[in-house]
Amino acid sequence: MPPERKIAICPGTYDPITFGHLDVIDRAASVFDLVVVGVVNQPVRKKQTLFSAAERLAFALQATEKLDNAEVEIFDTLLVDFARKHGACALVKGLRAISDFEYEFEMNQLNARLADDIESVYLMASPQYSFLSSSGIRELAIFGADVADLVPPGVAEALHERLARGNDK
Amino acid sequence: MPPERKIAICPGTYDPITFGHLDVIDRAASVFDLVVVGVVNQPVRKKQTLFSAAERLAFALQATEKLDNAEVEIFDTLLVDFARKHGACALVKGLRAISDFEYEFEMNQLNARLADDIESVYLMASPQYSFLSSSGIRELAIFGADVADLVPPGVAEALHERLARGNDK
Amino acid sequence: MPPERKIAICPGTYDPITFGHLDVIDRAASVFDLVVVGVVNQPVRKKQTLFSAAERLAFALQATEKLDNAEVEIFDTLLVDFARKHGACALVKGLRAISDFEYEFEMNQLNARLADDIESVYLMASPQYSFLSSSGIRELAIFGADVADLVPPGVAEALHERLARGNDK
Amino acid sequence: MPPERKIAICPGTYDPITFGHLDVIDRAASVFDLVVVGVVNQPVRKKQTLFSAAERLAFALQATEKLDNAEVEIFDTLLVDFARKHGACALVKGLRAISDFEYEFEMNQLNARLADDIESVYLMASPQYSFLSSSGIRELAIFGADVADLVPPGVAEALHERLARGNDK
Amino acid sequence: MPPERKIAICPGTYDPITFGHLDVIDRAASVFDLVVVGVVNQPVRKKQTLFSAAERLAFALQATEKLDNAEVEIFDTLLVDFARKHGACALVKGLRAISDFEYEFEMNQLNARLADDIESVYLMASPQYSFLSSSGIRELAIFGADVADLVPPGVAEALHERLARGNDK
Amino acid sequence: MPPERKIAICPGTYDPITFGHLDVIDRAASVFDLVVVGVVNQPVRKKQTLFSAAERLAFALQATEKLDNAEVEIFDTLLVDFARKHGACALVKGLRAISDFEYEFEMNQLNARLADDIESVYLMASPQYSFLSSSGIRELAIFGADVADLVPPGVAEALHERLARGNDK
Repeated sequence: MPPERKIAICPGTYDPITFGHLDVIDRAASVFDLVVVGVVNQPVRKKQTLFSAAERLAFALQATEKLDNAEVEIFDTLLVDFARKHGACALVKGLRAISDFEYEFEMNQLNARLADDIESVYLMASPQYSFLSSSGIRELAIFGADVADLVPPGVAEALHERLARGNDK
Repeated sequence: MPPERKIAICPGTYDPITFGHLDVIDRAASVFDLVVVGVVNQPVRKKQTLFSAAERLAFALQATEKLDNAEVEIFDTLLVDFARKHGACALVKGLRAISDFEYEFEMNQLNARLADDIESVYLMASPQYSFLSSSGIRELAIFGADVADLVPPGVAEALHERLARGNDK
Repeated sequence: MPPERKIAICPGTYDPITFGHLDVIDRAASVFDLVVVGVVNQPVRKKQTLFSAAERLAFALQATEKLDNAEVEIFDTLLVDFARKHGACALVKGLRAISDFEYEFEMNQLNARLADDIESVYLMASPQYSFLSSSGIRELAIFGADVADLVPPGVAEALHERLARGNDK
Repeated sequence: MPPERKIAICPGTYDPITFGHLDVIDRAASVFDLVVVGVVNQPVRKKQTLFSAAERLAFALQATEKLDNAEVEIFDTLLVDFARKHGACALVKGLRAISDFEYEFEMNQLNARLADDIESVYLMASPQYSFLSSSGIRELAIFGADVADLVPPGVAEALHERLARGNDK
Repeated sequence: MPPERKIAICPGTYDPITFGHLDVIDRAASVFDLVVVGVVNQPVRKKQTLFSAAERLAFALQATEKLDNAEVEIFDTLLVDFARKHGACALVKGLRAISDFEYEFEMNQLNARLADDIESVYLMASPQYSFLSSSGIRELAIFGADVADLVPPGVAEALHERLARGNDK
Repeated sequence: MPPERKIAICPGTYDPITFGHLDVIDRAASVFDLVVVGVVNQPVRKKQTLFSAAERLAFALQATEKLDNAEVEIFDTLLVDFARKHGACALVKGLRAISDFEYEFEMNQLNARLADDIESVYLMASPQYSFLSSSGIRELAIFGADVADLVPPGVAEALHERLARGNDK
């Protein structure tokens, strides 16, 4: 039996994408034949994002352009429907060493109920990124802290512009 | 000494009630002589509920109608005052396997300080419901996912109507 | 329907019984009509206890003698069989704020499978006892530290004698 | 080499300061030569505080007036910049037994990256305060519960006035 | 680029293999092209196993015989060396909902340092198996509890014989 | 008031000392005027150490010889008595991101009861060492894995010799 093409989804809000996200995406790309980075655009979550879905897509595209087997796409459906559309066998999530697994586990368990043919697969973040989150990055950026070694270059600039602009209000 | 009538309170927002809640209520009803399901109506929490207190009460009443020793009631006071009003000896909370116990423990500890004659008692959710929460249910319903095996029939319909209506906005 | 007599089991190794255990037993006795303190005597666990089952029973008896609705008994069977023998509706375990719930949850879940008519019920230890364990007590006693406010009087003396004797080896 | 003057920062929102905070500040003051209580005034966090920064400062000043080696100050910069301004060698945070360490650890890790000459140091809250938080206090106060043994006298009164006033809306 | 053959290792002591292990192995087999179940035979760990490596291998072989893309093999080397020998891209471990991840994470992190080309991948156990462990099974079996729905048939019998025999001592 | 000389104890079994331990000791030395590395020699713990107390002392001495304000000493008393003997104001423990804090917290809480003038202070391990433990190191060494970047040079050699020798048995 020839090997199947193994496709995995890396879902996230990516507001903005960080080196921690990229670490997980890279690892996923070394395990699966194709990784689809799914940028969540769910009006449901009341939480306003800092960057628009289009901006978050653009950052993710730029950050993954050197990965041959990664694609990026916005989705606004149930995660499992997005996964099915791509014929994915797995949802990949990064586990940070210290993390409230609750939301992930709960949603993924519900996902398993909705689609038991799609596995949720967890990869462990590298230690140097285990404390990195988009919200932490945004908070640092507001105070003008240097985040150049935590996010891709374009993102660092955009954070600076956006949050400087935001401070004018 | 004849046995006392043991009364327990099962407090919650129940927005909406799920099979996970009912699992805990059923277990409490097998341990205590009477279980009072207390539907929280606290304007304090800024979080807007999806269903009104009256709707949440109605769902809980319907879902527990086969339990002989369960009552349902809305309350908007301190939990311990509600418990005292009913002569309850215990507050019952479900423990989900993965859960942030923090809020529960903190409030219950404060409750213990306010009323050291009322015990906080924890029951463990059945594994098949350990990942179920009202917020997860609401999120699934927004996307039109089938939640018929996670909530009582009336609730599933109401979620569909309410969130379909919500999507029109 | 007259209230049933509610019986609960408080199982443990009690090697030796501490004020933390007694705190949980007291709370259980305020919720249930009868509390049976079950002193585990399982040759299975390879871990040697410091005190014999008979000694551990004696300490528990003495420590609970003022509780009208508590009994103490050694058992060497499956916990659920011990509970059934007593017609118990619940197994009561103390939750310490920081604790590895794993063993408790796992065994209790297995217990639920063996006897789904017996609920596992958790009470939260009082904060002042949340860091207290028999093994900690034993370790302190070895160094001659004063443990008089952590265990009943007879236990404190026995620890002193036993561990002093132990040091002679 | 003569001992250096060791300065530590105790940062927090202190909305309002509780006996739990004071317990940590007292402990820090017994370890360090000077403790600077930093009252966060960050417009960034969208969360509205109940008390203004000036009120929170006043409560903290009053509560610490008997500590010879403690100062209180509002800050609205990056925490590490505030620490550097004071020549502090350490940031001190209280660890409550049950707590989501996530935000603390994440921000402190980012702080370490920004200022690796300033250590984050954790002290463990006393058990009797391990369940105490400003948000729990606020919630109790809304219902008129007595919080006099959880916060300093002035704070208890202010909570009563503020939240009574708030209930008029 | 044709898809690569993706091989994963499912390492464990399997003393004995349970339906929880098989759940994880099944899931891994749905994600990877080949799953090699690695039965640990490390004289290093002082802990004596109940079953010999040969017995544990036999149980695992029998339990996975219906899985077309699974193999079973004993190994007594470093896990990463075993993985490399098989050309594996991933180590697969089951995450139980409540679990001390510590040992797994620590060893896997060390594994990552030894072989950064092999990813550690975590799958979440199904809720109904989230409380199942080989040690729990052994403990139940000692008391003669029925474990037929927790382990494969041959294992249940072997446990009965072995532990009955063990009780004779 | 001139600053007091602040002394801290870094207790541990150090079997053997790792770069993770040294990271914590270095940090403690940047906060306190003097750090006393206390090598535990407690015959109480039945767990046999790989290296003798004298060997563990020698490794710790060599590893800290460049730290001007660190001393190393074996102790076999209660930790708080060791701390008092040195006039220490604090016990310093490293927190690894993922860790069972239980034993530490429990013993330290008991320590607080025995000596409320000595604070337990926690420092967070650097991410790159957050997965490092003496037991992990020993396990790697048994299989001949290279641990040269995880422990000081002398330790790596000793591990090789000791465990190679051990394999002969």
